[in-house]
Order: sequence, then C-alpha cells, then structure tokens
Amino acid sequence: MPSRITLDDVDALARGCAVLGTGGGGNVRTGALAAKRALREHGEVPLIKLSALPDDALVVPLSGIGAPTVGFEMIQSADEPPRIADEIERLFGRRPSAIMPSEIGGSNGVYPVAWAAQLGLPLLDADGMGRAFPEVQMVSMYVAGLPAELVILTDVVGNVVTIRPVDGLWSEALARAVCVASGSAALMADYVLTARQARGAVIEGTVSRAIAIGRATEGAADPLATLQAELGAARLITGKLVDVERRTTGGFARGTAVIEGTGDDRGRTLTLEIQNENLVAKQVAEQGDRVLAMVPDLITVVDTQTATAVGTEGLVYGQRVTVLAWPCDPLWRTPKGLETAGPRAFGYDLDYRPVETLFEEVAGA
Amino acid sequence: MPSRITLDDVDALARGCAVLGTGGGGNVRTGALAAKRALREHGEVPLIKLSALPDDALVVPLSGIGAPTVGFEMIQSADEPPRIADEIERLFGRRPSAIMPSEIGGSNGVYPVAWAAQLGLPLLDADGMGRAFPEVQMVSMYVAGLPAELVILTDVVGNVVTIRPVDGLWSEALARAVCVASGSAALMADYVLTARQARGAVIEGTVSRAIAIGRATEGAADPLATLQAELGAARLITGKLVDVERRTTGGFARGTAVIEGTGDDRGRTLTLEIQNENLVAKQVAEQGDRVLAMVPDLITVVDTQTATAVGTEGLVYGQRVTVLAWPCDPLWRTPKGLETAGPRAFGYDLDYRPVETLFEEVAGA
Repeated sequence: MPSRITLDDVDALARGCAVLGTGGGGNVRTGALAAKRALREHGEVPLIKLSALPDDALVVPLSGIGAPTVGFEMIQSADEPPRIADEIERLFGRRPSAIMPSEIGGSNGVYPVAWAAQLGLPLLDADGMGRAFPEVQMVSMYVAGLPAELVILTDVVGNVVTIRPVDGLWSEALARAVCVASGSAALMADYVLTARQARGAVIEGTVSRAIAIGRATEGAADPLATLQAELGAARLITGKLVDVERRTTGGFARGTAVIEGTGDDRGRTLTLEIQNENLVAKQVAEQGDRVLAMVPDLITVVDTQTATAVGTEGLVYGQRVTVLAWPCDPLWRTPKGLETAGPRAFGYDLDYRPVETLFEEVAGA
Repeated sequence: MPSRITLDDVDALARGCAVLGTGGGGNVRTGALAAKRALREHGEVPLIKLSALPDDALVVPLSGIGAPTVGFEMIQSADEPPRIADEIERLFGRRPSAIMPSEIGGSNGVYPVAWAAQLGLPLLDADGMGRAFPEVQMVSMYVAGLPAELVILTDVVGNVVTIRPVDGLWSEALARAVCVASGSAALMADYVLTARQARGAVIEGTVSRAIAIGRATEGAADPLATLQAELGAARLITGKLVDVERRTTGGFARGTAVIEGTGDDRGRTLTLEIQNENLVAKQVAEQGDRVLAMVPDLITVVDTQTATAVGTEGLVYGQRVTVLAWPCDPLWRTPKGLETAGPRAFGYDLDYRPVETLFEEVAGA
C-alpha cells in the first residue's frame, strides 16, 4: 500500500474504481480531474490504515449523492468539504482525523482524494461498500449494525442539512429528498465514525486495491487476463453487445444488455440486468435461463481489448466486451448484508448463491 | 394579558386563532383538544412577555408543517417537542426558555400551548406572523432581517433533521422536502432565537390578542358587531355564498368564492381569491372589479349569526356569511414585508394598498 496518494496514482485509482463500480457509481473521469487539481493545489494526501488511528479519532465517510449527470457540477465548488468539516466540529467539538470514501466504486471512489486534499486530511484506506451501490443504507456500517445516527449534506448553494434518522432506510429517504430539493447534487457524510466504531464496520484496503487494479492493467501485454487474475474473477462471456435497453425510472437507470459470445464463447448468450449497477448475469438457454452471478457479487463489463471498465451508460451496440464477475466482501454475504443489498433488495425473486459456486457448476456441466 | 393559560382559555384562544387564520392555518379544533389534554396532564402554562426574558434566553418558534389533513395525527405523539428541545440543547448547550407560536392563525396558534405544557416551559405572548401564511419564510424574523440560520424538524417516526439554510427561501424548499419525505407532517422549529434577537423581530401580544378576540364574541348580544369592533375591521360584505371553486395544486388549496350581498348589501357581489388563506377580496362591477382588501392585510369570512370564523375548507354553497378585513402588523407593510408576503409574492399582479385606504375610497364613492 502506498503511504501517500500522488498525482501519479490518480489515473490508476480512477481505472480501478471504474472496475469496482460494476457499471455504476458515476464517470470516474470528472473525479480524476478534481483529484488532480486538488493535489496540485494542496499537495499529496497521506493514505492511512485504520489501525493507525486512535480510538476516538473521527472518520468521515464522504460521497456525492444525486444524479450522475448533475455530479459534474460538484467540481465547480471547493466549499462543500470545509462546510461538512465545520458542521462536524460544531457537533463533536473536534475536527475529523480522516476522510473515507463511502463507496470505492465509480467517481465516488476518486473524489475523496480531492476532498481530503482540500481539507488537509489523510485518506483512510477503506470504504463502506467495496464496490458501488445505489442507496444510502447500502453501506457496511449499516450491515455491521452501527446505528444510522447522523447524515450531513451540503450543496453547491451552501445549505447544510443534518439528519438524525431512526434507521438506515429513513436516512436514505430523507437524504434523497434533501438532495432532490438541493438540485440533485450534494456532498454527503453518511455516518461520522470514531475509529473504534469503524473497526470491523468498514471494508479495509479498498483504496489501495483500486490503485493496484488500475496499475496492473496499465501497459500489460494482455490487459484482460491480467485484470482477471488481479480480481480473481470468473470470465462469464466474451462477445459482442447485440441489444441494450435502458430506461430511467424512479431515479434509477434500469435496463437489460444482451451479449452474444464470440470465439470460444460462440453460441452462448448472456443477459445482464441493470439497475444503475450490473446486478444479475444470466446465461440464456432453451430449457430456462441460468444465473451465473448476482448482486452483491461484482459484475463488470470491460472492453475486451483494453480491459477498461464500461459503465452502464456507455454500453453501445456492437461493442466487443467481456463480462467478469468476482466475490464481494464477506460482509455482504451475511444475512443482514443480503437483506440490505442481496437480489431481493433490488426486487429479484432469487435466492443468493455465491458467484464461485454458480460458475463452478456451469464449468462442470 | 393573562399571566397563565388555563383550560378555561383554550376555547377562546382557538376561536381567536381561527379568526386570525384568515381562512387557513388548519382546523383549530384538534389544536384545542391537544392543548386541553396537555394542560390537564402537565398543568397551566405561564404566558410571558418578551421583556421578561434575559437577552441570552432561547425562544423556540414552533409550528406544525404539512398537509392540514395529516396534521390531526400530530396529537397522537407527545415525543416531538422533547426531541426538538434535546436537539436545541445539543446545539446550543442549554435548554430553551420559552416556546412561541410561529403563526398565531389557525391550529398552529393553539398547539403551542400543548407543546409548552409538555416541555414545562412558558409560552411567549408573540408569534412570527400575526396571522397565518403558507410558507416557511413568511415570518417576521425573516422580514426583520434575521439570517435564516436554523430549522429543526422532527416527525412521528422519530427522525430529526436540522437545516442551516443559506436563506429563507431555501429553508422553505428544504423543510418542505423533508416534511413530504416524513409523511407530510412534522413539528418544526423555524429559527431558534435569543431573546435579544427576538426583540423587534417577532409580533408581540398576539396570543393574548387571540384570547381577547375569542372572549369578546363568546356570549355577546351581537357577536358580529362585537368582533368587528374588537378587530377594528371593515365589513366588506354580508351575504350568501353562491359559488365556491376549489382545487389543490402544488400542495396549496387554491380557489375562488363568490358572495352575493343580502340586506343592505343587496345588489353587490364580492369575490375572494384563495390560496390556503383568503388573499384578495374584490367587488364585482361592470366597469371592472375593484379590490377592497389584499394580502398581507387580514381577510376573514365569518358566520353572520355567530361570528365564528369559517375556514376556506368549510365554505359551502348557501352559507350566510360576512367578510371582514383589517390591517396587518406594520412589519408586513415594509418593502421587505411586501416582497415576502405581499400580493406579488402570491402571483397577483397588484400593487399593495392598505385595506383602510381601499375601504375609505369605496365608502366615499
């Protein structure tokens, strides 16, 4: 693990966050621009382990909340992170000790470098998802049973809203309402954790993992094989995108993508069910479709040549892609984890089964 | 001014608040039930003057926010006022010294008796409107130039949301969004004032005025004449409701009522423009309608026999009513007051003119 994040790390981090975004989490490019600008202006950001923090140090999980299309505006203003820090100091009587990405997947994995630089604070090598998820309560802190005590939001205008929700579902409902009223883009601290609370309740090592994923494939002779090995991923299919259907309903980008196998995969067809992220991958068969991977395991579509992750909004007809899937953090496989972000939490009538089991069954068949 | 509010005062207060509600502000009956129950349980509530409070004492302007139809639920829970007080203690390091109605008109003028009783706090003989208005920023504190620093909301579920808005308009937008997400009913502290800030920024004497208005008409030989004298009001028309049109759009009850004169007023017709409250009263004439009174002056429809105020939701065909209008607090006639709650703030293309001027012109014509 690097001890500091420098300008040189940002592109690798962005590349890795795109892979961990499983199709969602917003475009990493704007996050990378913001991170580079902030690093140039404020200097490098220390990357620290949770074990380095004393028990009472405050860790602030930050993320942008809102429509990804509006998120780009966020980099116009540098005032949001200080406002969140000021509100925390007002409420806790001390400054935060570290910033943590709430979700490592997508742009929300990259922006925190900018926010930490602006605040002159270290970045914690951890996040609350190990991937991307669409809803506020879909974080490891919630699954670990930490009470949803505090959400702080601030918008470009300068409003600051503090929510003390009765539970994680209310924190989602109220934060979403505030975000929409604020013009669909806000910076959010979801939980303010003492280091003591964070231990066991965050997913550690994910910032350095994203950087490692990005570094592994940069300039590799066989980017796809390198990425697959780095992730420990199953290759569900390599082929061509032959159908993409997308609609935006209830603030979610929902849709289906169909990939027809080429080369060794000729004759096979895979469908991807999408709700902001890639949630379910099924092999199409006459005797009935067969699920190969499902949320909360990670499913990412990458360009077959470059192994660059393709976001759900970037899927276009004719694209040559490979679909990779690999296991989520064990926390998501607990009963509370599956209740929070398993297939049924997204409306799929499926019992969760781990990707490695499903894939072995198919490979063995 | 009474020094305490007792069970015996509640019906008079409710009656007066209905008159000051200018057709809106919610049904006073549920507020009266809640106030009586709380007074029985917790004892009488001291009614104090602002001058009795030291400069640094905290005054909390409270109101229910949300759909009036949902507001009835509010009396089911006694937990909201303590939650607001706890949040204030957390933020300010001390307990509030007094509760103040944010608006004296309608149910929001009566409920604060219950809230003060529950908290064991005195009620300040003042409010932020001197009447009823539909939006959060339409309060004297905003007009007086106090920065909109803090709004605290709590709902029946137990969520607590604190808003630090950049201005009064944002406090309305964000509080409304939170209220809707909370199920369209919440208890709200709009501003938390030191007594020093409150001086000159609240409308004093309005609680005792509401009680006096209610008392004056109870058992009077001629309730209507008595009420008119008590208010110093102009009688715009006495007649019969011949048309009522209502629609609910954008969270507002909008509509028009038409009153045909009877007795001395035979041959005259008055139309009332309604947006939650009665906002504009016009005399219909072939050569063009003539405005007799307009917001922020107060326009109230009363039953001609009993002088009981009729809310906009209670207007029915055939009702025998009298329309009274009288001057608002001088604060609302300042440029900032008219900008905030004058006719143009409600979308009417009218230059404000005081009711006494308009009425004299008509009477002299």
